[in-house]
Amino acid sequence: MIYNGPAQFRTACRLGQFDGPTGGQAPGFEQANIVVLPDAYADSFHRYCLLNPQPCPILHIAELGDPTLAALGADIDIRHDLPRYRIFTNGEASKDVTDIGDIWRDDLVTFALGCSLSFEAALVAGGVRLRHIEEGKTCAAYRTDSVTQDVDPFFAPLTVTMRVVPDDQVDLATSISQKFPLSHGGPVHVGNPADIGIISLNNNIDGLGLNNIQAGETAMFWACGVTAIEAAVSAGADLTISHAPAHMLITDRRAHKPT
Amino acid sequence: MIYNGPAQFRTACRLGQFDGPTGGQAPGFEQANIVVLPDAYADSFHRYCLLNPQPCPILHIAELGDPTLAALGADIDIRHDLPRYRIFTNGEASKDVTDIGDIWRDDLVTFALGCSLSFEAALVAGGVRLRHIEEGKTCAAYRTDSVTQDVDPFFAPLTVTMRVVPDDQVDLATSISQKFPLSHGGPVHVGNPADIGIISLNNNIDGLGLNNIQAGETAMFWACGVTAIEAAVSAGADLTISHAPAHMLITDRRAHKPT
Repeated sequence: MIYNGPAQFRTACRLGQFDGPTGGQAPGFEQANIVVLPDAYADSFHRYCLLNPQPCPILHIAELGDPTLAALGADIDIRHDLPRYRIFTNGEASKDVTDIGDIWRDDLVTFALGCSLSFEAALVAGGVRLRHIEEGKTCAAYRTDSVTQDVDPFFAPLTVTMRVVPDDQVDLATSISQKFPLSHGGPVHVGNPADIGIISLNNNIDGLGLNNIQAGETAMFWACGVTAIEAAVSAGADLTISHAPAHMLITDRRAHKPT
Repeated sequence: MIYNGPAQFRTACRLGQFDGPTGGQAPGFEQANIVVLPDAYADSFHRYCLLNPQPCPILHIAELGDPTLAALGADIDIRHDLPRYRIFTNGEASKDVTDIGDIWRDDLVTFALGCSLSFEAALVAGGVRLRHIEEGKTCAAYRTDSVTQDVDPFFAPLTVTMRVVPDDQVDLATSISQKFPLSHGGPVHVGNPADIGIISLNNNIDGLGLNNIQAGETAMFWACGVTAIEAAVSAGADLTISHAPAHMLITDRRAHKPT
């Protein structure tokens, strides 16, 4: 099922009617990575994001303990409105859930960061053939051998999403995505996955997404907000919550629409 | 004198060789609004910027007391590298200076916010005729009758820059500027200045910039970082420092260059 509007989509998540990946949902609306951390870590994580703006473009930071995100959507309640969350305890993934109302705490701070799924609708509207969409899949994400700038206690490798496009559409896809700097902007690499340390296309994070390249296709790689999750978790806080990879918050903000 | 590179430009400022407006300087490099506040106000001002991202797009926030801004340029020292600063005492402008080394304090926090001067080079490269540039002037800025979202103790009217373009280039200028969301993005108004509360074109802030519209020209208005200065000053801190309007920091970051 495809939900056209963000409010409809979030309602479906809140009611437990949808718990899948958000690629293709509410096309044209900004999707966001979500990282929730205890207040004691918030300032350092904020600095980590500021110093790594391509993987971690800040859309909004909620007030201490506040589960709403009115700047991104009037009725958003971050405890219920994502399709799927990942809970980390002392820096280790403990479980995926579809609601975090029961574990919310007053000392939590929510970070919303841009996501490249936000510009997929613009790529398609611009004429780019995205095979993962044609096959009804989400894009794959990979860890690279690049590192981001550390801010103690946060560190992480750069993680990327991969999209395969027809060879002659690389420039078009580059040009369109560059118009969305708050959604990671232009690609960080085009071509051979091994050049950025992706040894096997089967190493896609969570096994999610289209992970092969066919003849006549070129692989394109964009910075990915999973970088922010891995950085957040690296601090080993007693509790860290993120979206489950590919299961984003969909906001009421229209993704930037160049004319 | 036009300086082509940001480091050259900042050196000239640091040595006291240049103290004019930055429009047209170091074309293609990102220019930034600068607001410096005591630490006690930093969190609230940060929130004000997050809630008003069009006039106040955050490029970077320096660490407490640190006058460097390495994320925006390796050698930047905010105490010396702007052509002109404005000092406010208890919420009142006290004087304009060309260096703030003598009044720097360890409790100050520097905010760098995007600026529409960053996309002027792209407008010109895209074929837009900007008469203020042809006349060797900067653009004018005005207060509007719109208000931004308050965050106690910060409030301000929305301030805009005005650029006049040939009537048939409004769409082109809109399209190009929309590609620079961290430099205020697309226009907030096109057409009659009175529609946004600009009663007289002679009310341009500091009397700076081209303030007339000729036959065959349309006025275009973009959100302006002077909004952030006025908000910062509204708190009445014992010391607030900003760039003098139109006298920006020029960073080493290339303004986003869509292909």
